[in-house]
Amino acid sequence: MVMTTDSTTTRKTISHPRPQPTYRRSRPGSVGIVKRQYAQFDTPLHLRSGETLEGFTLAYETYGTLNASHSNAILICHALSGDAHVAGYHTSQASEKPGWWDEAVGPGKMFDTNRFFVICSNVIGGCQGSTGPSSTAPDGKPYALRFPHVTVPDMVEAQRHLLDHLGIEKLFATGGGSMGGMQALQWAVAYPERVGAVLFMASTPRSSAQHIAFNESGRQAIYADANWNHGDYYGGPAPAGGLSVARMLAHITYMSEASLEQKFGRRLQSADEIPYTFDTPEFAVESYLEHQGEQFVNRFDANSYLYITKAIDYFDIAADYGSLRAALERVKAKFQVITFSSDWLYPAHQSQELVQTLTALGRSVEYHHVHAPFGHDSFLVEVEKMSDLVGTYLDRLWQDHKAATR
Amino acid sequence: MVMTTDSTTTRKTISHPRPQPTYRRSRPGSVGIVKRQYAQFDTPLHLRSGETLEGFTLAYETYGTLNASHSNAILICHALSGDAHVAGYHTSQASEKPGWWDEAVGPGKMFDTNRFFVICSNVIGGCQGSTGPSSTAPDGKPYALRFPHVTVPDMVEAQRHLLDHLGIEKLFATGGGSMGGMQALQWAVAYPERVGAVLFMASTPRSSAQHIAFNESGRQAIYADANWNHGDYYGGPAPAGGLSVARMLAHITYMSEASLEQKFGRRLQSADEIPYTFDTPEFAVESYLEHQGEQFVNRFDANSYLYITKAIDYFDIAADYGSLRAALERVKAKFQVITFSSDWLYPAHQSQELVQTLTALGRSVEYHHVHAPFGHDSFLVEVEKMSDLVGTYLDRLWQDHKAATR
Repeated sequence: MVMTTDSTTTRKTISHPRPQPTYRRSRPGSVGIVKRQYAQFDTPLHLRSGETLEGFTLAYETYGTLNASHSNAILICHALSGDAHVAGYHTSQASEKPGWWDEAVGPGKMFDTNRFFVICSNVIGGCQGSTGPSSTAPDGKPYALRFPHVTVPDMVEAQRHLLDHLGIEKLFATGGGSMGGMQALQWAVAYPERVGAVLFMASTPRSSAQHIAFNESGRQAIYADANWNHGDYYGGPAPAGGLSVARMLAHITYMSEASLEQKFGRRLQSADEIPYTFDTPEFAVESYLEHQGEQFVNRFDANSYLYITKAIDYFDIAADYGSLRAALERVKAKFQVITFSSDWLYPAHQSQELVQTLTALGRSVEYHHVHAPFGHDSFLVEVEKMSDLVGTYLDRLWQDHKAATR
Repeated sequence: MVMTTDSTTTRKTISHPRPQPTYRRSRPGSVGIVKRQYAQFDTPLHLRSGETLEGFTLAYETYGTLNASHSNAILICHALSGDAHVAGYHTSQASEKPGWWDEAVGPGKMFDTNRFFVICSNVIGGCQGSTGPSSTAPDGKPYALRFPHVTVPDMVEAQRHLLDHLGIEKLFATGGGSMGGMQALQWAVAYPERVGAVLFMASTPRSSAQHIAFNESGRQAIYADANWNHGDYYGGPAPAGGLSVARMLAHITYMSEASLEQKFGRRLQSADEIPYTFDTPEFAVESYLEHQGEQFVNRFDANSYLYITKAIDYFDIAADYGSLRAALERVKAKFQVITFSSDWLYPAHQSQELVQTLTALGRSVEYHHVHAPFGHDSFLVEVEKMSDLVGTYLDRLWQDHKAATR
């Protein structure tokens, strides 16, 4: 385990040390126009809650080409508010924003689509095409709160169906930040033979009390919205106020005191002097947060927010195995673990416990603690650093793989 | 300025070093039964917003006895959710909880009522007896949002009327934690001749963007409650859901990741296995937070919460003087500044800027950075350490005072 002492990143390969790899971010580009795809499964999905989904749909996207040996697949797992649309565009409209991690996925990028076949699916319980509480139940009405509770292991189990469907027996790697990291870790523990490497970024092996507390505050904001109506709001007004508050609050936890101070400080929104009013945002940071809340309400379902935050709270990789060590003893994958100095939502010590235990078990772990001011969101914002770290790591693993299969 | 490097407190007197004082916390006791008093002022209070309150009432309590020379008065300033009832009991019922800082105020305690005359008044804008948005306006109806915006300088100006009323020309000291520290600092800058010493605990000379962001999230939760009705809810149901969410969220910021983890961890509330439900709290930390929210709703007015959080956001001691240095050049008081290692709502660097500037100006400053796990609430929780620091400091000032007036 390595912690940096200055503003640059220190890296240490805990096992299999070797010369610096040859990875270069040459000719970065876009994956272009992509299409959301759907896989429908008629097989039942047995959930940790004891309930069963008799059938389900996963929305997913893919980038790059699956090679003949099906050995170049990387599964990216999205975080709480993400979806299957990682990269590229759905239309040719100039105003369209690309997928949520477009800077990471494409030809020459850290997930290099010239080399890898990249997959991302919307989680079960989500609201972007996969079956979730806003989906139509067998009785023709939306599930709403009749939707069963889902967990990170359930998300992974649904993804396992998708990989079977795509004919991918073993992932070259799986990874993600935040809840995405949880899914990647769960993959390596639940299906050790099917995961070559895990990219575990700004995440934790176990949600903390503080994390549960913030999630619960957000859920309570949704419950308190009269429009929520115990989840039965489809066809009527959505609980936009409550969901917006939940998002505002969560957004603060994705940033850092320093980045908020640097970005906004005490700057007023639109006046030279404090207007002294409750009617409009007075400080720029208020306006920014309210905008974040409003944008989110337009694209996200409040019930999905409830289900997915619960899944995050439930996550403890040790739960099924008695201890973290017992869970990690199952792991065959190599791990790259990345934490960020200003990430106080997923503080480094949580990942370090994972690193220490994997290391004690003799697994291959490369750990980076990156000094970055952007809080939890650093894993999305620090593109260049992440490209160097993740791209270089994947390149090295790919060279190893080619050498082994030559 | 001193920062500790281990788990004990390092202290350094930046000026006037002297031998360890003789303060002892001997025979701590209660102030017993106390009574809330009211001072009514018919003089107008001109507010920073440009508005005027034509008259106002302050609720206050006092403990101990004002001496003949009126030189032993200490004004304690309360934080966001506090009130004038600092110590003792209002009734003789065994079930009654004492005032919010009972452990600090009483015979032999850190604010030793055998020696000092301790005063605390509910802030203007509050809901515990002082004039605020729930008070009756001259037209016989509650002010609600017609109440003018108040600031920390306005709170201090109202307190200045109270001190005049009580015949106290100069405070021996004034102090408090959080927003209480803001008021104490404002006192020393606005009325330099009237303040002997400032006890500035877990506070800041200027609210940060992150702090404003959290407060705004809480306000938005209140706004989103249909019962809020743009502030007109008196006589009808209060916006309890929204206020409860605001309190839950704020309560997380008063604690620390470590203290939440130590107190609750992932402990379930009332089951051996996760119940998988939205209907009841599943984790103990959720139940705790919801209890905090419910308790708060029973004792606090939602509109007061809006006004007082705004006052906190507005606070920047430099605002009226152009710079922090220019504001602090006015100060004649001695300062004791205390920060806590786990206080991420009022991080130490904010107070350190105050300490550095006062020190550069040659003012007497004693600074302590206390290693304590309880987050912002440490100033209330770490009773023994605070008693040693504050009690010892006040004892020393008192010995100086006696020597000077002998």
